[in-house]
Amino acid sequence: MKKTYLFTPGPTQIPHDVTLAEAKSMIHHRTSEFSNIFIKVTEDLKYVFQSKSDEVFTFASSGTGGMEACVVNTLSQGDKAVVVRGGKFGERWAEICEAYGVDVIPIDIEYGKAVKPDLLDYALRKEKEARSVFVTQCETSTGVVHDIEGIAKAVKSHNALLIIDAITGIGVHPLMMDDWGIDIAVAGSQKGCMLPPGLAFVCVAQSAWESIKKARLPKYYWDFKKMRKSLGNKTTPFTPAISLIMAAGKALDMIKKEGIENVWSRHARLAHATREGIKALGLELFAGDASSNVLTAVKSPEGFDINSAIKKLRDESGVTITGGQEELKGKIFRIGHMGYVNEFDIIVAISAVEKCLHENGCKIELGKGVSRVQEVLLSCK
Amino acid sequence: MKKTYLFTPGPTQIPHDVTLAEAKSMIHHRTSEFSNIFIKVTEDLKYVFQSKSDEVFTFASSGTGGMEACVVNTLSQGDKAVVVRGGKFGERWAEICEAYGVDVIPIDIEYGKAVKPDLLDYALRKEKEARSVFVTQCETSTGVVHDIEGIAKAVKSHNALLIIDAITGIGVHPLMMDDWGIDIAVAGSQKGCMLPPGLAFVCVAQSAWESIKKARLPKYYWDFKKMRKSLGNKTTPFTPAISLIMAAGKALDMIKKEGIENVWSRHARLAHATREGIKALGLELFAGDASSNVLTAVKSPEGFDINSAIKKLRDESGVTITGGQEELKGKIFRIGHMGYVNEFDIIVAISAVEKCLHENGCKIELGKGVSRVQEVLLSCK
Repeated sequence: MKKTYLFTPGPTQIPHDVTLAEAKSMIHHRTSEFSNIFIKVTEDLKYVFQSKSDEVFTFASSGTGGMEACVVNTLSQGDKAVVVRGGKFGERWAEICEAYGVDVIPIDIEYGKAVKPDLLDYALRKEKEARSVFVTQCETSTGVVHDIEGIAKAVKSHNALLIIDAITGIGVHPLMMDDWGIDIAVAGSQKGCMLPPGLAFVCVAQSAWESIKKARLPKYYWDFKKMRKSLGNKTTPFTPAISLIMAAGKALDMIKKEGIENVWSRHARLAHATREGIKALGLELFAGDASSNVLTAVKSPEGFDINSAIKKLRDESGVTITGGQEELKGKIFRIGHMGYVNEFDIIVAISAVEKCLHENGCKIELGKGVSRVQEVLLSCK
Repeated sequence: MKKTYLFTPGPTQIPHDVTLAEAKSMIHHRTSEFSNIFIKVTEDLKYVFQSKSDEVFTFASSGTGGMEACVVNTLSQGDKAVVVRGGKFGERWAEICEAYGVDVIPIDIEYGKAVKPDLLDYALRKEKEARSVFVTQCETSTGVVHDIEGIAKAVKSHNALLIIDAITGIGVHPLMMDDWGIDIAVAGSQKGCMLPPGLAFVCVAQSAWESIKKARLPKYYWDFKKMRKSLGNKTTPFTPAISLIMAAGKALDMIKKEGIENVWSRHARLAHATREGIKALGLELFAGDASSNVLTAVKSPEGFDINSAIKKLRDESGVTITGGQEELKGKIFRIGHMGYVNEFDIIVAISAVEKCLHENGCKIELGKGVSRVQEVLLSCK
């Protein structure tokens, strides 16, 4: 009996009831039936983003599309933008900016480390003309969480928009759009929101509109002004991904019922237990103290072929954890624990890691990780 | 017992087995399991596009995103492009081009009429520098089908790419990418492909690559070069809409089993029956001889409030037909008959139209449409 366990950095496991909502009879999107679902989803997203802004846009796209939307709606060619790079997704902000002729001022952070908020203040003092600051909340490629609250404080006194890639962070780590003064944040469906991939959510604060009006980069599909106008009519400018939005109706309902603070603390507890389990096995966290609650990145044991071990685990036992990307390939493995996840999932994940290491000849003390997880879970509720 | 009947211009009804495929356990997209599904979908799309090109790209987006991809990958700022406009979707090509600073040479066609292919030859003789020609195969807003084969012949001797919006036409009307010499065609998931909305498919012929290499418009998410490179690795550059792609595996399988020629002729027969039923009721086709097999656009009876009648039909009987958009609002109604549709659906659709007209005080001879449909269906198999 091979069951499927997804401990990937996204997509996450989908709750059965969300799948059932996705599978409901198709409806036409130019009807009040769709509008009612859509407006409820938009309202619930405001709650998830902790924002009173009415402008939360739902794009039919991957998260990257939402990131591109943030760039093209706020900047003009030749504008300067500060980008925190410290992994594949921070680098993506820079790549998008460069594709559009935006002058990138990079803040490069060693992989596995978080940016010090002071660095942003320093960069913005030096580059007074920088119009936007792009930061990744949770850098999925390294397992790092950046201190967005601190960053927001550092950016506040400067004349630049703060734009956050919260694709992986949303519904896992606190993100207080309004309280922290974030101008724009983008989220994806397939992470903390417990949905299949295919939707990008972009929350735009009132404070961003002046820049949006001035931005001259070309755009059509990603145009926030079109999205705002359609949202005023309770719909989208282009055919929405209806089945995914129906699923979002259910998934966001679950988040609201649990309470977003409880969702955050559940993730904190489970991530803590995962990290403790990993350490008990004598393994080292790649991101150390900067480890996010989204996923745990672990240094692969020296000389161990982690990628074939991961493949074997998936093929034989149905458990998916993932290796490193690009420069980190073969050097780390990543255990996702976001979205539809509870304490027993962590027990399974650590048990699978133990099995994976043991069966492939890596010397670990079997059961030590699982029992430490059990201990942590029972001592910290 | 209110059942749901979707006779809209998209989305269409989703076959139960396609929904079941969409609802399968989520999988990770960087696995051979996903790659196998994805490559099969890509192969099946080649069949649907009737192309041997290996480059069929699947975007997580609405069809409009696929259109934008065609523009930004083939043109540079200031380039000239010929655009056939004769409805909302032809106009959309022009709007996208204009958003990117492309110089649009419009060929304006009266709503409800098809473009004469000669006009394209004429335009291209006059505008020798035009680099792309954008045409809509089926103009959903008016119900018109344009003669793509004839247009391809007219464009062939000129030095411009032929780019077709086949979003609604695909899997309904023949589209022979290779035989007709189309350079790029874009399709959407929610029409003839019997899928929920959220995927755009773009088939790129070898002949288009020279222009793609030269094109300087900025792009990131829509970049064909990125898509091609990832497709070579059996994947997508950004997280794909996994559940929709799993659904596509099933839906395209159904099309392949029926045989694309049979799919086309089924639509031709059902559309013919619909038109005959409408005419038997004394109503007039908006697109006359240019009526497509995707949907039937019908002139609303003089002085009749078609939009409230349509709303009542949907609310009370669960049958969705749609009214006109923008300039055509209140003037026409549209009956979609694409995708997962058979002869009994047409009986239901015409019966619903009769009910809708009759109950709202429009004088028609009850049963006359339905019996004409029955007659046509039995006489032409």
